[in-house]
Amino acid sequence: MNIRSQNEEALLNRIRRAAQGTIESSRPRTFSLGVGDDAALFRPTTGHETILTCDWFLEGAHFLRQKHPADAVGWKCLARALSDVAAMGGTPRCFLLSLALPASHTGRWLNRFLGGLRRASRKFQCPLAGGDTTRNQKILINVTVIGEIPAGRAALRSGARPGDILYVSGRLGEAELGLRVLKESRRTMRGSDRRLRKHLYPEPHLVLGQWLTKNRAVTAMLDISDGLSSDLPRLCAASRVGARVHSARVPLLLISEADRRRGFDPLQLALQGGDDYELLFTVSRRSMTRIPKSFQGVRLTAIGEITRDPKVLLHREDGSEQLLVPSGWDPFRQV
Amino acid sequence: MNIRSQNEEALLNRIRRAAQGTIESSRPRTFSLGVGDDAALFRPTTGHETILTCDWFLEGAHFLRQKHPADAVGWKCLARALSDVAAMGGTPRCFLLSLALPASHTGRWLNRFLGGLRRASRKFQCPLAGGDTTRNQKILINVTVIGEIPAGRAALRSGARPGDILYVSGRLGEAELGLRVLKESRRTMRGSDRRLRKHLYPEPHLVLGQWLTKNRAVTAMLDISDGLSSDLPRLCAASRVGARVHSARVPLLLISEADRRRGFDPLQLALQGGDDYELLFTVSRRSMTRIPKSFQGVRLTAIGEITRDPKVLLHREDGSEQLLVPSGWDPFRQV
Repeated sequence: MNIRSQNEEALLNRIRRAAQGTIESSRPRTFSLGVGDDAALFRPTTGHETILTCDWFLEGAHFLRQKHPADAVGWKCLARALSDVAAMGGTPRCFLLSLALPASHTGRWLNRFLGGLRRASRKFQCPLAGGDTTRNQKILINVTVIGEIPAGRAALRSGARPGDILYVSGRLGEAELGLRVLKESRRTMRGSDRRLRKHLYPEPHLVLGQWLTKNRAVTAMLDISDGLSSDLPRLCAASRVGARVHSARVPLLLISEADRRRGFDPLQLALQGGDDYELLFTVSRRSMTRIPKSFQGVRLTAIGEITRDPKVLLHREDGSEQLLVPSGWDPFRQV
Repeated sequence: MNIRSQNEEALLNRIRRAAQGTIESSRPRTFSLGVGDDAALFRPTTGHETILTCDWFLEGAHFLRQKHPADAVGWKCLARALSDVAAMGGTPRCFLLSLALPASHTGRWLNRFLGGLRRASRKFQCPLAGGDTTRNQKILINVTVIGEIPAGRAALRSGARPGDILYVSGRLGEAELGLRVLKESRRTMRGSDRRLRKHLYPEPHLVLGQWLTKNRAVTAMLDISDGLSSDLPRLCAASRVGARVHSARVPLLLISEADRRRGFDPLQLALQGGDDYELLFTVSRRSMTRIPKSFQGVRLTAIGEITRDPKVLLHREDGSEQLLVPSGWDPFRQV
C-alpha cells in the first residue's frame, strides 16, 4: 500500500490478483492467456461472430471523484460497456481494462474500485483478460468488451421498418433522478441509497437481449445510454425511418409531490435522462404477440411506432405533436 | 469545421468517413458491421485464436500537444498497439479508437490526426471497426487492436529456457534519441526530420513476428516498448529464468562526437530508451541456424543468453558484470 514503492509492475500484479477469481471462475478454457503478456489470447466459438465495443468512463465527465463511491465506478465502467453487447443480443466473453490514475489513488480507492469491478465481472460472467495502466492526475478508464453471438443473429440499429412497433424495457428516468440527487448531496453518497441504485449500479439487460434476438422477434435494437430523445433518433437515422412516441405510454417514474415541486418532471427525466441502459427495440406488427408484458420481472412497453416520414415525433395526450429534439447527454453540444 | 455546431454525432460521422477507405480497402468480408452501431461485429477465422490488446496514448504522458505533430500522434497510437500483436506473431484484423479531445481540436488537429491514423491503418492493413468519442480538456487516446493467429502458435513471454540465445531486431536507442531532440526543440518539429523518424513513426515488426512464429523458431518474444533494461526482466520473470546481456553485442546507434559531448551515450540510450518497438526474442541453441543475420533489411542480433540463475546481468567488455536495473519508462516509479 506504500505509494512510493508502487511501480507499474506491482500495480499490474494487484489488478491481476484481483481479477484472478473472475478469470478462473468462468469458462477457464476460453483463454489461453490472461493478463500479463503482450496481449490476451481468446478462443472464439465456432459459428459465432465476435462483438467488439469500447467505452470511456472519465472523471469529471462520467463520474465525480468526490461523489461517486469507488466501488460504483468499478461496477459501472464494466456494466455500461456490457450494455452495448446486450443491445446486440450477444453474450460477453471477456474485457480489457485501461486504467490511468494518480499515485494517491493506488491504495484504498483502487481496492474498492477493483471490488466493484470484480462483482460486475462475476455477475455478468465476463472475466478480465488484459489491459494497460498508467499514471495520470485525473482518473481515466476505458473498457473494451468482447462478446459473441451466433453468426447472423445480432440485432442492429438499422433494421426498423415503417409500421414496426417501438418497445422499451423497464422504466426511464431513474438513473437521471439518482444523478441529480447525488449532485445535490454534499459528500460521497452511500452506494446503498435506494434512489441511487440504478445510477450507480446499472444492470445491462444481457439475458433479455439474448432472448429477443434468439426468438428473432426484434427488427432493430439499441440501449438507451444518453436518453430516449437522443437515442431514438439514432435508431431512426440508421434505419432511415421516423417514429412517433406516445408520451402517455412511456413508462415513467412515480415521483413524490415534494420531488415534483423541486422541479423533477418524470417525462423530462425519461426523455433527457441518460444512463438507464434500458433496451429500445422494434418489432413487426405480426410479431407483437411474441413480446410478453414482462420478461423476468422487467416490463416491456410498446411506446409508439415506426413511420415512413423520417421525423421523430412526440405525440402528447392532448393530441398535439412536436418534434422530439435530442436533449440527452452529448459531450460536444454547446461548447 | 465550426466548432460550436459540432456535436458527438457529427464528429463520429467525420471519423467514420475518414476511416471508410481503410475499412473498404482491406478484407471487406471480415466485418459484418463497422463504426456506427452499438458495437462492431467481426468474423473470426476458423482455427485461429483472437489476440486482444489495448494501449493508452495520453497527452502529457506519451506525447506533447505542442511538440508532436498531430499526424504522428495518429500514426503512433495505432503503430504501438500493433506492436503487441507483432510480439505474439499475429496478424492485425481491426482496431477500436477511443478518443477524447477539447472542442478546439476538432478541426485541423483532428483532420491531421486522422490522416496519420489512416496511413498507419492502410500500411498495416488494420481497419477501424468502432470506438467511442467524448470531450476532454486534454487529448486522451486509447486504441484496442484485434489480431489473429493460428491456434497454439502465439509466441509468449513465458517460453524462454536456460541456454536459449537472446536476440534483438534492429538497433536500440533511436526512438529515445529522437524524443530528446524533440524535447530540446522550441516548437512543433516537422515529422520529416530524419532523427525523429523512429520516435514519431515507429513501424511494428508484424511480418518478422509472423515469420519467427510460423517457423516455430522462437521460444519467447516481446516488443521493447519501455527499454531493454525494463522489458528483458519482464520476459525473464514470465519465464522464471535470468539472462546475461553482452554490452558489446547490443546493436547501438552511431552517434556523432558532438552528440556524445552533449551527453548522449549510445549504450544508455539502448538500455533506457523506450518506444523502439524492436522485437526481443529467445531461440534454442539448436534453432540458431534458422535465424538469419537480417530479415527484410532488419538486423537480427544475438546479444546474450538465458540463464537458470534468475538474475538479469549486463556483461561489460572489461569482463565485469552488473545487475541490469530497470531504468526505462515506468509511469509509476518515483512519485
